[in-house]
Amino acid sequence: MTSHGDQTNIFDVIIVGYGGAGAAAAIEASDAGASVLIVEKFGEGGGTTKMAGGNIRSVGDANKMIAHLDALTDGTTDRGSIEAHVRGLVDLPIWIERCGGVIRTDPSEMLGAPRQPGPPYPGATPGTMFPGVVGADGIGLRYRWPKAQNKGLSRGKAAWTMLSDNIERRRVEVLTNTYVKRLMCDHLSGRITGIVAEQGGKEIRATARQGVVLASGGFAWNKDMLREWIGAAIPSAAPPHRNTGEGILMAQAVGASLWHMNGIVLSMGMLVPGFDATFALKVRERGFILVDRGAQRFCDESRLAGHSGGMLLEDRDHHDAIWRRIPSYVIFDEATRLAGPITTTDAGFNLDSGWSDDNSMPVESGWISTSSSLAGLASKLGLDAQSLVTTIDDYNRGIETDKDAFGRSRMDANPIENGPFYGIAVWPTVYNTQGGPRRSAKGEILDPWGVPIPGLFGAGELGSIFGSLYPGGMNYGEAFVSGRVAGATALGVEPK
Amino acid sequence: MTSHGDQTNIFDVIIVGYGGAGAAAAIEASDAGASVLIVEKFGEGGGTTKMAGGNIRSVGDANKMIAHLDALTDGTTDRGSIEAHVRGLVDLPIWIERCGGVIRTDPSEMLGAPRQPGPPYPGATPGTMFPGVVGADGIGLRYRWPKAQNKGLSRGKAAWTMLSDNIERRRVEVLTNTYVKRLMCDHLSGRITGIVAEQGGKEIRATARQGVVLASGGFAWNKDMLREWIGAAIPSAAPPHRNTGEGILMAQAVGASLWHMNGIVLSMGMLVPGFDATFALKVRERGFILVDRGAQRFCDESRLAGHSGGMLLEDRDHHDAIWRRIPSYVIFDEATRLAGPITTTDAGFNLDSGWSDDNSMPVESGWISTSSSLAGLASKLGLDAQSLVTTIDDYNRGIETDKDAFGRSRMDANPIENGPFYGIAVWPTVYNTQGGPRRSAKGEILDPWGVPIPGLFGAGELGSIFGSLYPGGMNYGEAFVSGRVAGATALGVEPK
Repeated sequence: MTSHGDQTNIFDVIIVGYGGAGAAAAIEASDAGASVLIVEKFGEGGGTTKMAGGNIRSVGDANKMIAHLDALTDGTTDRGSIEAHVRGLVDLPIWIERCGGVIRTDPSEMLGAPRQPGPPYPGATPGTMFPGVVGADGIGLRYRWPKAQNKGLSRGKAAWTMLSDNIERRRVEVLTNTYVKRLMCDHLSGRITGIVAEQGGKEIRATARQGVVLASGGFAWNKDMLREWIGAAIPSAAPPHRNTGEGILMAQAVGASLWHMNGIVLSMGMLVPGFDATFALKVRERGFILVDRGAQRFCDESRLAGHSGGMLLEDRDHHDAIWRRIPSYVIFDEATRLAGPITTTDAGFNLDSGWSDDNSMPVESGWISTSSSLAGLASKLGLDAQSLVTTIDDYNRGIETDKDAFGRSRMDANPIENGPFYGIAVWPTVYNTQGGPRRSAKGEILDPWGVPIPGLFGAGELGSIFGSLYPGGMNYGEAFVSGRVAGATALGVEPK
Repeated sequence: MTSHGDQTNIFDVIIVGYGGAGAAAAIEASDAGASVLIVEKFGEGGGTTKMAGGNIRSVGDANKMIAHLDALTDGTTDRGSIEAHVRGLVDLPIWIERCGGVIRTDPSEMLGAPRQPGPPYPGATPGTMFPGVVGADGIGLRYRWPKAQNKGLSRGKAAWTMLSDNIERRRVEVLTNTYVKRLMCDHLSGRITGIVAEQGGKEIRATARQGVVLASGGFAWNKDMLREWIGAAIPSAAPPHRNTGEGILMAQAVGASLWHMNGIVLSMGMLVPGFDATFALKVRERGFILVDRGAQRFCDESRLAGHSGGMLLEDRDHHDAIWRRIPSYVIFDEATRLAGPITTTDAGFNLDSGWSDDNSMPVESGWISTSSSLAGLASKLGLDAQSLVTTIDDYNRGIETDKDAFGRSRMDANPIENGPFYGIAVWPTVYNTQGGPRRSAKGEILDPWGVPIPGLFGAGELGSIFGSLYPGGMNYGEAFVSGRVAGATALGVEPK
């Protein structure tokens, strides 16, 4: 690449963002004979793909799955896009094997079976988050990435290594540490013709003969956009300072329609000093509750799911506009502390934090507060002591009488009576966002009347087909499927 | 106006939408010497302005009011825009008098006083919906439009007559039944140069020398946009089939940033056959409750405010994705039926419905269901009879013991025991939306990086400065203030 004006900066396809969607688009376009440039603002690729859990839902029954996703998106996503996604999911395992990766469905998943009591909390969600919605039984088992067949890597790292290996083998130029600032547009035709980027303080331009694919992710790390679109600048578990939303702004600037901007995948997470990304909450014994800022419980904690973080945004005081559940607090007993780390340890961004299995390290580091008495714990957490004591008395009595105020079963609850006691703030946490430029089933970015903007394509988390009811395990597959589609459509072909 | 191509279709300023904001912009631009065209898709002007309650908040203490609005918008609105709005509100009474209208503050409003028990429900909200938020005491009394000084008209009609009289007196061309389809853009400079519209099946174009002001309102009547931005295609109390959001789409198409798309002013309303707009709920005696689809109560009904409709969107089932409170039902006793119409009668779109003061007309019309027994009523409403009976037993017992489950005071509750009993579905109802193109303090529509799009301006409900925490009584004043600002800025001057 040379600087501005040099005619050698011409590619068939330019891809903005080197995560899963961008890599899939590049592989597809390259295999169709195109010269491809990937531009990535960070020093290395991977994006959210590399650190995620790597879950891909298989298709159980395609028609039912289409009906399910159609119902969940409730008219905000055209049926053609849903059908294209499911069709792409059906083809995905073959493509992954062709790329040298191996995925296998996880037969231990009990689709359709009633939830079994007991930890961890949140537990797994087999199939879909919405088992009561039409077509739920069309969702298939989850694919996993077996270590043995993936160079000893598992989950997101296995997926990413497969993708980046494939990029290296192809005629694809990757520019890292390069920040795309604007799309170039031929104003007469309205066609997107390339990009203006910055690299080491220097402006560079590159021309795309066939099109630009925006695959730069969501806005999990853009506080202004979070405030605008979900009402609060909450933290994120996604790779810090990526997913800052510029791709969405660039699409807006050339007249793209937006969709699903309110659709956010939210978990519950803990923030500790020195770590930008949250630690996902995962409790491994029954002696715990969640309380809000008033030290009141608000849910059956045993029914938490991986994406239950949205409930922390549900209770806003209409008098003083305070979010009563931001933050909330997990309160637990000694047995729960000893039962295992209260966070996930096999995915996420903070794998090297040193969080010990018995939680002693985060306790000693002051991340988790502790006291021999509940009143003492309340004072350390800034909660009203009497309220917390009453709340836990009520909870303990509910177990005794099997009449929990929120319906929590005795099989999922231990009384909190043996100290020391522990507590830490729990925040609604962005896993990823769904919003961005609206795209067609073929990956074309659309204007407000549904007309494609010539030369502009979108893939992955930037403008996902999913809205505010996200069934789980779908965004990962979407990165691959929509990346492939966008890479092919830019060249006027079908995915191979 | 002549059809496409004729050079006489040239104006200094073109205004899209002939409601309060558009009229104010036209008056301001005309008074600055401009030739002005207003284009309105309906057969007459007025928009939401004409049917609204006409409430304008006065400024009590400007600095406190600015701090209050700053806190409520929580970083989504720049402080300059808030300051400009409050400054404009201070000047507004003089401008209104100059236009021949008269407004007077309402001294009966008890700002800062604790709520007095008793009907109606919802009651008035003096000052702000958020008395616990900083600067709340900076909000002044409400202005009203006294009939005597406003040609015998009151509220929205008084305001609209003042505006339309002023338009008629000026060099302003008004094209009704004309639907603006697109903005014209000089692609080299990016400047907005005019409009493409349709009138009687014929396309017409008009050129704007100085600028186009979008004042075409929100998207209360666009079901697709409601689904996209608030998650449900709920009904509206606004003038039917206006406020369909095209102005927002046109701004998006030329690269505008969006803000406040999730900010919706929601009331509770009733839908009856033959009327597109909802009837706002207003109950005038203490013998009533609200229940959800499971016949369960969910709030202290005596604390309802005019904008409490949002609570009907708060409880969505996470298993089957059903909105548990859409619709909800108001259940009331005979004394409440006789106490007065259970709807507002002095504002809104359905003033000529014939809804009788004793509610007998809507009962006889089958709009309100009735039965001598609660079980019979439940069956007519499609509710579970046993659940409704239990809910009302609990409610009645709560009054007896002064221990209502939702804290409703005995002074605001009568037992529901003397039939016949009545019930009708209550829906979350859009009064107006706040979202649209982001604008500067001067009314310039901005691109995603905050740079004005040359020649394009916005006013009123289309891209309001308010977000999801709306203090009440502000959108009306904003129509006037922001209309004036946009009309002046288009000509490069300040409002007079």
